[in-house]
Amino acid sequence: MKNQLMKMLTERKDEMIEIRRHLHENPELSFKEEKTAQYIVDFYKDKDVEMQTNVGNGHGIIVTIEGGKPGKKIGLRADFDALPIVEEADVPFKSKNEGVMHACGHDGHTAYLLVLADCLIQLKASLSGAIKIIHQHAEETPPGGAKSIMESGVLDDVDNAFGVHLFPTDPAGTVGYRSGYTMAGRSYFKLVIQGKGGHGSSPHMANDTIVAGSHFVTVTQTIISRRLNPFEMGVVTIGSFDGKGTFNVIKDRIELEGDVRYMNSKTQARIDKELHRIVAGIEEEFGVECELTYIDDYPVLFNDPEVTEVVKSSLENMNDPEIKEVKEYPKFSGSEDFAYYAEKIPSTFFFIGCKPKGVEEPYFNHHPKFDIDEDALLVAAKAVGQVVCDYYELE
Amino acid sequence: MKNQLMKMLTERKDEMIEIRRHLHENPELSFKEEKTAQYIVDFYKDKDVEMQTNVGNGHGIIVTIEGGKPGKKIGLRADFDALPIVEEADVPFKSKNEGVMHACGHDGHTAYLLVLADCLIQLKASLSGAIKIIHQHAEETPPGGAKSIMESGVLDDVDNAFGVHLFPTDPAGTVGYRSGYTMAGRSYFKLVIQGKGGHGSSPHMANDTIVAGSHFVTVTQTIISRRLNPFEMGVVTIGSFDGKGTFNVIKDRIELEGDVRYMNSKTQARIDKELHRIVAGIEEEFGVECELTYIDDYPVLFNDPEVTEVVKSSLENMNDPEIKEVKEYPKFSGSEDFAYYAEKIPSTFFFIGCKPKGVEEPYFNHHPKFDIDEDALLVAAKAVGQVVCDYYELE
Amino acid sequence: MKNQLMKMLTERKDEMIEIRRHLHENPELSFKEEKTAQYIVDFYKDKDVEMQTNVGNGHGIIVTIEGGKPGKKIGLRADFDALPIVEEADVPFKSKNEGVMHACGHDGHTAYLLVLADCLIQLKASLSGAIKIIHQHAEETPPGGAKSIMESGVLDDVDNAFGVHLFPTDPAGTVGYRSGYTMAGRSYFKLVIQGKGGHGSSPHMANDTIVAGSHFVTVTQTIISRRLNPFEMGVVTIGSFDGKGTFNVIKDRIELEGDVRYMNSKTQARIDKELHRIVAGIEEEFGVECELTYIDDYPVLFNDPEVTEVVKSSLENMNDPEIKEVKEYPKFSGSEDFAYYAEKIPSTFFFIGCKPKGVEEPYFNHHPKFDIDEDALLVAAKAVGQVVCDYYELE
Amino acid sequence: MKNQLMKMLTERKDEMIEIRRHLHENPELSFKEEKTAQYIVDFYKDKDVEMQTNVGNGHGIIVTIEGGKPGKKIGLRADFDALPIVEEADVPFKSKNEGVMHACGHDGHTAYLLVLADCLIQLKASLSGAIKIIHQHAEETPPGGAKSIMESGVLDDVDNAFGVHLFPTDPAGTVGYRSGYTMAGRSYFKLVIQGKGGHGSSPHMANDTIVAGSHFVTVTQTIISRRLNPFEMGVVTIGSFDGKGTFNVIKDRIELEGDVRYMNSKTQARIDKELHRIVAGIEEEFGVECELTYIDDYPVLFNDPEVTEVVKSSLENMNDPEIKEVKEYPKFSGSEDFAYYAEKIPSTFFFIGCKPKGVEEPYFNHHPKFDIDEDALLVAAKAVGQVVCDYYELE
Repeated sequence: MKNQLMKMLTERKDEMIEIRRHLHENPELSFKEEKTAQYIVDFYKDKDVEMQTNVGNGHGIIVTIEGGKPGKKIGLRADFDALPIVEEADVPFKSKNEGVMHACGHDGHTAYLLVLADCLIQLKASLSGAIKIIHQHAEETPPGGAKSIMESGVLDDVDNAFGVHLFPTDPAGTVGYRSGYTMAGRSYFKLVIQGKGGHGSSPHMANDTIVAGSHFVTVTQTIISRRLNPFEMGVVTIGSFDGKGTFNVIKDRIELEGDVRYMNSKTQARIDKELHRIVAGIEEEFGVECELTYIDDYPVLFNDPEVTEVVKSSLENMNDPEIKEVKEYPKFSGSEDFAYYAEKIPSTFFFIGCKPKGVEEPYFNHHPKFDIDEDALLVAAKAVGQVVCDYYELE
Repeated sequence: MKNQLMKMLTERKDEMIEIRRHLHENPELSFKEEKTAQYIVDFYKDKDVEMQTNVGNGHGIIVTIEGGKPGKKIGLRADFDALPIVEEADVPFKSKNEGVMHACGHDGHTAYLLVLADCLIQLKASLSGAIKIIHQHAEETPPGGAKSIMESGVLDDVDNAFGVHLFPTDPAGTVGYRSGYTMAGRSYFKLVIQGKGGHGSSPHMANDTIVAGSHFVTVTQTIISRRLNPFEMGVVTIGSFDGKGTFNVIKDRIELEGDVRYMNSKTQARIDKELHRIVAGIEEEFGVECELTYIDDYPVLFNDPEVTEVVKSSLENMNDPEIKEVKEYPKFSGSEDFAYYAEKIPSTFFFIGCKPKGVEEPYFNHHPKFDIDEDALLVAAKAVGQVVCDYYELE
Repeated sequence: MKNQLMKMLTERKDEMIEIRRHLHENPELSFKEEKTAQYIVDFYKDKDVEMQTNVGNGHGIIVTIEGGKPGKKIGLRADFDALPIVEEADVPFKSKNEGVMHACGHDGHTAYLLVLADCLIQLKASLSGAIKIIHQHAEETPPGGAKSIMESGVLDDVDNAFGVHLFPTDPAGTVGYRSGYTMAGRSYFKLVIQGKGGHGSSPHMANDTIVAGSHFVTVTQTIISRRLNPFEMGVVTIGSFDGKGTFNVIKDRIELEGDVRYMNSKTQARIDKELHRIVAGIEEEFGVECELTYIDDYPVLFNDPEVTEVVKSSLENMNDPEIKEVKEYPKFSGSEDFAYYAEKIPSTFFFIGCKPKGVEEPYFNHHPKFDIDEDALLVAAKAVGQVVCDYYELE
Repeated sequence: MKNQLMKMLTERKDEMIEIRRHLHENPELSFKEEKTAQYIVDFYKDKDVEMQTNVGNGHGIIVTIEGGKPGKKIGLRADFDALPIVEEADVPFKSKNEGVMHACGHDGHTAYLLVLADCLIQLKASLSGAIKIIHQHAEETPPGGAKSIMESGVLDDVDNAFGVHLFPTDPAGTVGYRSGYTMAGRSYFKLVIQGKGGHGSSPHMANDTIVAGSHFVTVTQTIISRRLNPFEMGVVTIGSFDGKGTFNVIKDRIELEGDVRYMNSKTQARIDKELHRIVAGIEEEFGVECELTYIDDYPVLFNDPEVTEVVKSSLENMNDPEIKEVKEYPKFSGSEDFAYYAEKIPSTFFFIGCKPKGVEEPYFNHHPKFDIDEDALLVAAKAVGQVVCDYYELE
């Protein structure tokens, strides 16, 4: 069956590219992917599958392909939301939805998986168990879609799950894997500092929040430099210091927003605790009132070693001209809500090189000029197809 | 003549209030006071005076009242611009120009001076020398109107100048004076810090301007705490820290704006020098590029001791029921472009209590609910009238 | 009597110098002035005065000269302790007590006052009331001697008190006075920060007090820059940061010591409060334990305006070749425990120029090379003698 | 031969303990280990080996055991210096050299290796190649002894080297290994800040180094928090802030000392560069003069994977009751000058558990109460003996 599947995929490469371009032209923000979801639903219409829509807290779609024999159940996941970015890439299929852009490759993820799913539907008699195709909404925006899909119970019977991400660090043909802790967990925080406004010439009559906020920023650096085990990865970035005001008026209220990354939940707990401690200290020191909102969202992505080994050996033994290199990837400080699946289901998430041809320094994901080599779609489809076949020991 | 003038003023109290209310309802921002200037011009139409319009860098108006005999020349100044504030005072003559408000009493200054000027015009045969009525535009916004009026030369022949300001710390009937350095000089600065943006999870690939800016704020505190003679007044306020961004993106560029106050030009020079030194240090420490713009604007207001003594003794010897208390005022950290007149012409600037009746804690100048006791207009008119009479020794 | 007194003083100029040199060679630290006190006691032996020794919390000596007639009682005070400084001045009468030095002129204060007292004893029949000569111990070291002398009650019957200080900013012959708040009040504080030691390579296992202490220092700058009225004088100096340790060991405990100056007790109260607030904040932020000791010691020196006016007009009307200039002095940030007398007794403390001849930039008080022009001793004696005579209206 | 060696070692366990106790009682500081070196020399006297003394920059001793056949050459290293610590451990063989203590187990390293060497000398006919016993001085104090021993050339013919360290985290019987980067590299720095002293009440006349130094400390935190790849280990500890002074005197000069750790030489280079940048910034900001001394000393310890694999499999296959557990150890932030050997010679450094029996939380190396389970000496001897036998394939 494997050969048949590979042949079918090769023949439908152009279709994958078309689908991807259609999605690219019509991006939709997280939780607002109505048309994209409808497009997916339409794709499966009249196909012999069970489909669940509006799964979880948004437009999630689960398509179940029942195999001809009993067996294990696996999930294959692709996300389909886009980002609030004004596209600057010079492509003929540029976003028609100004200010929204598929700048993270989710268009490609969905395109390859639709075609792969269709092929698997056609071959399903040869399959055992079942394959659940997870078309996930809202990966980009916390709380994300994955958590709620897991909570919905629709994946309770899944034994293992797989997902991929397009990555422009390597050319199309490269597949990257990693076992164990692979992508960072993430928290978000917001700090509002309320002091007392006043005339710039009379600081003693006011309570200056810009000074208090600046001390918060400097003290917060010590969480990373002094509180964490130096062998543990941790980041606290304050990405927003909203203290715009008038030069001669003491600012009464400022808002800061920040981002926390970690590879270990203990690190997260420590950062959370220390931030609260620092905020309490700032209140004392400056007599301001602080309101700290701290939300831990996507967990650390843990790729199950056994499942990852299946992927690795499956791909290394693949004899296909599209798959040119299979290599271990380093840990990565980005975050992924695929981690929610991997928390409960032994899973692995791997990486598909997509560096545009002829480009030395590609634009990275989330850049307004992000672009991919569309050959990567077929690579993704074949790599995941190969894994599925080997998983079910289908030759 | 003094008694006659006082009588005339008392009779025209309601007119002053009417004028003030008209101006209050029709406030205009600095350098945009077209209708206000026209109103003033219309007021003097058909009166026997010389009038110069568009004096200086805006809508300044100089009205010269020639006395019947030779003698000294004095200037009486009132400013007429308003502030970019949404009025919240609950008055029937609330601003009709949404977002602009006479929140600093300039409406009252102009109202009393128009009526006083008209009375003096009527009595001018008894006057010696000449009185130049200075209707000044743009006091609120640097570079202000005063500097350019001085530079225009129209006041070159003036021997002494006088101005007043409404102040809600005391009730109507109180007049405050101060000799020597009285109101603070002021500088403005803007600092742009350019670093390098990047993903919040990868600080080493970026250069975080929020961290650099926060250190600028904390180090800047040492100018006041360690660099100035503790007996010298100095203030550095950073009123704006414009670093709004996205929580998980390292901010590439921020803008800070600040306000400097001083009672001594050496203090100003020291603060200027130290700010530049700190900015150079921040560039080194953080590898960011900084652009510091530092503009010294209104100088320290120096009230000439002899001229102030004339005002003080004149008012203390006044026997008028409107003038209830004459007292020395403390130094004040606010700034006034009247200081430009006082730099060249021996002058004094004094204060007219205007606390609304029945109010314990009045809203201060520049507050959206700033309000005055309109009785203060007659107080201002009589106080300045008295000074004029005593200056020319007119009984 | 005044002429007689002046003549006597002129004749005993050399004796003043001898006494001063003797004291200079034999300095003793605050509260340890045994030999100095004995020297003073010996001076008065066999003289017709009442003497009280060991007054207050140390070696204080009060010598009462009763006048021949009833009248007001005044106090004349000179301090006699020295400083823990290794003398570097190149004088033939250099300190024989290595590490202790009369570097603040107290040797001169005592020398002139002993001779003046002796003259007044000889002339006491002409005096009315009584003169209390206050030979005060321990001015240099808090809590000082003055407070306890006041508390002892021995000065309860004194109507006014006078003191002088040698000051090298002006040459001998200059006398400086100032009315009202004249010298700064002072507080002392000590902060012990207890964290947790550990290996330099494992910050997360320890709690670094050097980082916590450094933040204390930077935040403390905001007391002066943001909490005080910019027109009010205030200083917070951290003079000691005792954090010596080993480069690769995280420091578990540090001690900081600081100095506070103010011209207004409200300023002192604000600084006290803010320091406590900041310390509480540091405890929260860094999880360290802090112990803050804050001791307010010498108060602001307030020179009674009426008493100061007596001194000023007395000296201005003096016709003596020794007294060349009488001028107002600016406020001064140094502190003096004479302020304790002045808190209860209307008093004034004034200044005697002592700049060495031929020196442009003299070493200031407390410098290891501090030196005086000994002509200043006769100036001091005559100035105080003149004030005494005029106080009692003795011609 | 292996069985014979193990038997010999078992029989000489008490001797190892005796030697260790002798050394423990007679500790000597780095570079001053005269008696210890003499003790070692005496031990080898009359034995059939070549001995080189005073190797490198101190008391290093190289003992060469020539095997009966040609073959590879290996080095076995033990260090023998002690630490400047006042011993607080309650043992009968407590340090007789007050203030010096074998608190890092070097006494045990030397004891086991002397006995093992003696056994190997007796069995040398069966050995091929040669074994160089490296008795190294001065491990505790940079620049250490290892670097100079390497530079002396005496180890130029060595193929592989081995060393062990006693570690109280595991009980005697546990051996820990790790392949690749294992222990941190280290740099030392010293910063002298020169400002200008002055009276605490007059900050504007002085230049406060405590404030400048505190800002240095706070800014330095950003090297770790913002400049390093969050996945890279890095530490900057400022262990000493020597700013002791007088509370009311502005401190003119302070000295800071710090410790840098890293697992990657690029990290070291970045920290070095950033420290210099920050120091240049502090000079600008505060107008102080800084002198930064930065010395990179022990490099990162890299355990050669192949050599480590030899040790690991050798020990895992060992069937000896003394060796109870062989396990991988995590990376460790401590530093070792064994790293200098490993830079040039493929080597491995491994760990011998020595937690005292019955103790839950042992005192760690360098603690005044550090103590070991002396059973660990035999473990060390057998483990290294086993590795030697397997290395030469001697059954």
